[in-house]
Amino acid sequence: MSEQKGILFILSGPSAVGKGTVRKELFKRNPDLVFSISATTRDIRPGEVDGVDYYYKTREEFEELIKQDKLLEYAKFVNNYYGTPRQFVEEQLDKGRDVFLEIEVQGAMQVKDNFPEGVFIFLLPPSLEELEKRLFHRGTETHAMMQGRLRKAIEEIKMMDQYDYLIENDDVKKAASKVESIIQCEHLRRHRTAHIYKKRLEVE
Amino acid sequence: MSEQKGILFILSGPSAVGKGTVRKELFKRNPDLVFSISATTRDIRPGEVDGVDYYYKTREEFEELIKQDKLLEYAKFVNNYYGTPRQFVEEQLDKGRDVFLEIEVQGAMQVKDNFPEGVFIFLLPPSLEELEKRLFHRGTETHAMMQGRLRKAIEEIKMMDQYDYLIENDDVKKAASKVESIIQCEHLRRHRTAHIYKKRLEVE
Repeated sequence: MSEQKGILFILSGPSAVGKGTVRKELFKRNPDLVFSISATTRDIRPGEVDGVDYYYKTREEFEELIKQDKLLEYAKFVNNYYGTPRQFVEEQLDKGRDVFLEIEVQGAMQVKDNFPEGVFIFLLPPSLEELEKRLFHRGTETHAMMQGRLRKAIEEIKMMDQYDYLIENDDVKKAASKVESIIQCEHLRRHRTAHIYKKRLEVE
Repeated sequence: MSEQKGILFILSGPSAVGKGTVRKELFKRNPDLVFSISATTRDIRPGEVDGVDYYYKTREEFEELIKQDKLLEYAKFVNNYYGTPRQFVEEQLDKGRDVFLEIEVQGAMQVKDNFPEGVFIFLLPPSLEELEKRLFHRGTETHAMMQGRLRKAIEEIKMMDQYDYLIENDDVKKAASKVESIIQCEHLRRHRTAHIYKKRLEVE
């Protein structure tokens, strides 16, 4: 039904749970999904394209976006801003295209404040042991660093209560299939489609 | 996750929309789904088995079930009662099995009163023309009968607002796939699983 608006899906979860891998598998299977393009103040790198990889902004432009509430979320890393422009997302949704945002927990909570009609999906590790393995696979961390990271991941896991759906990432393909079923089924929810059927069947 | 309770799914929709055909396609694909067994006061027929085809009850037994609020819904057709015993449904859900109920609109609304935690799916015809075709394919109806049936179906279509999901039955296989995605995705909803993950990941 092309009359239906697109839906913003937010995939989040603790560090090292495998958000990026699941997102890549999902996009491989669903070329029609739109990946949200971030804005950033960091320099453009060779091979990158403005409006494809990022929207490149000056610090002044970015701070103006913040001030005018034109970002669904933003954060500062290593002296550069990164954020999600609301305009791009809304344009795609209006065209009936679903937009997908893969983001860490703090950013997702900002999106929830600014765009509560999004569908929030939380990826969970199969076990704490498995999460530790994924967090520390590089083997270069000090004990204190490891403790800190684990504590942070556990704090993030506690945020699951803020999400609509929980998916265990025990297997990338299975997890991607579960996201797919959420995408399909959210489009069937009555509040998104009743107006279309009522019009079509003349029972308004 | 076997720790999760089963879910009661209710498939409904106007007369002649094709509920039975979609349900049969769904059960062919998902042998693990449990079909809710009705109770009835009508006589057992050759080949039928008590507790498989129906639970066969005397009129007194059935009216006792009504009085004790042990039916999710019931109705009287041609002097016989038919109804959905709550006990069978709850036993299956407790075992972690999903139960599926295919039922007309009035019955579904009774189930909603008695079991609001069910997931209510409404099947819609692709168009009014198509619904008329399905309603009158026998060609033996009088004009007045046809008008009456169509009016009733349109009243039933207006009940879509009471449902969680709307599915267009333009194609049986597609409609069954959509029901499958609802079944899968309902199991991922946070309120059904958060307690399990919190326990497993020790963040209670």
